[in-house]
Formats: sequence, C-alpha cells, structure tokens
Amino acid sequence: MAALKLHDLELSGNCYKVRLFCALLGLKLDLAPVDLMSGAHKNSPFIDLNPFGEIPVLEDGSVVLRDSQAILVYLARKYGGEDWLPTDAAGMAEVVTWLMVAENEIARGPGNARLHDKFGYKLDVSQARTNAARILGLIETHLKSTDWLALGRPTIADIACMPYIALGHEGGVTLAPYPAIQAWIGRIKALSGFISMPAL
Amino acid sequence: MAALKLHDLELSGNCYKVRLFCALLGLKLDLAPVDLMSGAHKNSPFIDLNPFGEIPVLEDGSVVLRDSQAILVYLARKYGGEDWLPTDAAGMAEVVTWLMVAENEIARGPGNARLHDKFGYKLDVSQARTNAARILGLIETHLKSTDWLALGRPTIADIACMPYIALGHEGGVTLAPYPAIQAWIGRIKALSGFISMPAL
Repeated sequence: MAALKLHDLELSGNCYKVRLFCALLGLKLDLAPVDLMSGAHKNSPFIDLNPFGEIPVLEDGSVVLRDSQAILVYLARKYGGEDWLPTDAAGMAEVVTWLMVAENEIARGPGNARLHDKFGYKLDVSQARTNAARILGLIETHLKSTDWLALGRPTIADIACMPYIALGHEGGVTLAPYPAIQAWIGRIKALSGFISMPAL
Repeated sequence: MAALKLHDLELSGNCYKVRLFCALLGLKLDLAPVDLMSGAHKNSPFIDLNPFGEIPVLEDGSVVLRDSQAILVYLARKYGGEDWLPTDAAGMAEVVTWLMVAENEIARGPGNARLHDKFGYKLDVSQARTNAARILGLIETHLKSTDWLALGRPTIADIACMPYIALGHEGGVTLAPYPAIQAWIGRIKALSGFISMPAL
C-alpha cells in the first residue's frame, strides 16, 4: 500500500486529529507541510486539491478528501473495521452527532477563542468564550456518566472533539471547572499509539 | 413498525430536512410540535431528550437522536440501503464532507442571515452574508460540473445542504447569481415524494 499523504500544518488541531488517528491505527502517514504564511493554501496547486483553500487534505491514492471530520470517517471505514465507526444505524449516528459537535460548537467555542488569541483572527472572542462555556458544560455533564463520548468506547467522536478542547488554554479557555473532561483527555492520552502536538 | 416521532418546528430548515427525507423514503413520521416561543425546548421533558435544548429530535423506538445531519445519517443507514449514504469508505466520506458544509459553512452563512432577518437573532449579519457569498460561490462552481453534490446521484448531502440555501432569500441572500444552484434545487424538488415547507 502506498503511504497516505496529509497536507498538514503542525499547529492545526484539525490536522492533528488526522495525525493522531493514523498513529492510533498504526498507519504510515507522509506529511506535506503547507506554508499558510505565504498563502500556499489559497493558490495552485493546493487550491486544485481543495477549492475551499483549507487544511487538512488527505490523499490516499486517487482519493482526495477535505474536512478533518470527513477524513476521520474515511480512515475509520477503510482501515478501522467496526471499531471506531460502526455501520449499524444507531451506532453510526451516535458517533456522527459528536462529529457535528466538533464541526460546530467546539469550533465556534474553544476553537475560535484560540484562533483569536494565538493567531490574531479578528472575531468576537467574547462570543467564542460564551460558546465554549456552554459546550464544555454540556460535555462535562455527559462525561460524568460515561468514559467516552459515544458507544462507551473510544471512537472517532473522541478524536474529533478532544484537540480543540485540550488546546482551549491557548484561547483563554481553562479546563479547571471540568474534571470529567480532564479525566477523559487523560484516557485518550493513554491509548496505545497516542501522539501529541505542541501545547497539548 | 411503530411510527417515527419528530420533535418539530414547521419553520425550521433543520426539521424540514428530516421531514423531507422521510417523505422521500416513504416513511410515516409523527410530528410533535415544540413550542419554542414558550421555551419548551429549554425545559423538561424536552431537555431530558436533548440536553442541547435544540430541535429537531428524532425518536425511533428506544433510539433518540439530536442534530439534523446525524438524523439523516441514521435514517439513510436504517431505511435507505446503500442509496443515500453508501458504506464504502470513499463514498461515505464524500457524502460526509457535505454534511459538514451544512453544519458549518451553510449554517454560518445563509442560515445565520435568515436567523437575523426572520427571527431577530442578534448576530453579525454582515459576516453571515460574507460567509454566504463564499460558500454559495464554491457550491455554484461545484454544481457546474455535476448534477448532485456527491457521488453523481441524490444523497443525504443534497438533503442536508439544500434547505438553508433555498431559504436564503429570507435572510437577504438571493440566488440570482447562482444558476447552477437554482437548477440543482429544481432537481431536488422534482424527486419522487418531495414535500415543501413555508417560503421554500
């Protein structure tokens, strides 16, 4: 099998999701760093791979995919059997609800707060912190009665949701009020094959 | 089979996605209107079904699901065979990229513009219209070379993305510059079993 190729940025939590999941699956991943500072993501040849002009992009032979959550779905289906994303309707949908939380509430909460504080994005950081408090409160309550976000076991729901929560301190979002979330992050870090990223 | 039950709001595009997909699948759906004006979605018993306090919620026997995109995944897997959401890795991931566009770019674009104009939400409508122009431009380009968002056939990608685009005029987002999007909406409206919603 030819190696998977990830168009990557080391400091991107979305790219890290893909790097982490490949590590957990034992998959070899070639990294192609994208020079965002020079605008490489908005120009050819990158824009031809992903018209959205965003990282990450995964190439697996002729398959080219954008969006970190969709890439996790692809890797889980192709290389993870039924473990990380089952195909039964209720199980798959339960995992997908949390992929949507990663794409929506977590990105708009701790994700946006970090974009503002660490990378200087002009956005409403007060709104981002309000969003963060709401979603972290909901997840804290959820994790008081279960060790993992979905199905009572590690799934791509955990991989999709953890990074921007664990990086929240880079956006002024502390996890001190959320012991169940802290314990959950600890369980993910203890998974066989786990790799980290800067500031995690 | 006991009927499916949808906790519903007629004017919600997210609820409409579920109503539409059930109609296309020929599934009977019992509607339980939620009185958002009185705050029913923020209190018991609704909040016990969905701690996020949001519609839609689908009940299918003991299965309870939140998030319109996740509900589409559930219905497609349970009642749609391989037609609307295939289980092969590349096919499923291609559909999921568009579910994420519905959850992210479309919600933050034409969706938010409509929330502002029609329902009086306090949000940055200028940013919403900027977001709308970006994502509609990307989708217009995509639909110039394909009749459907994913896999060259109708999938839940189309069901997830169409409503808030077609309702954009309620948020000041006209589709006049986007003939390929208009034609795509027409193809969806021509599907066997199609049902509409107010202002669509």
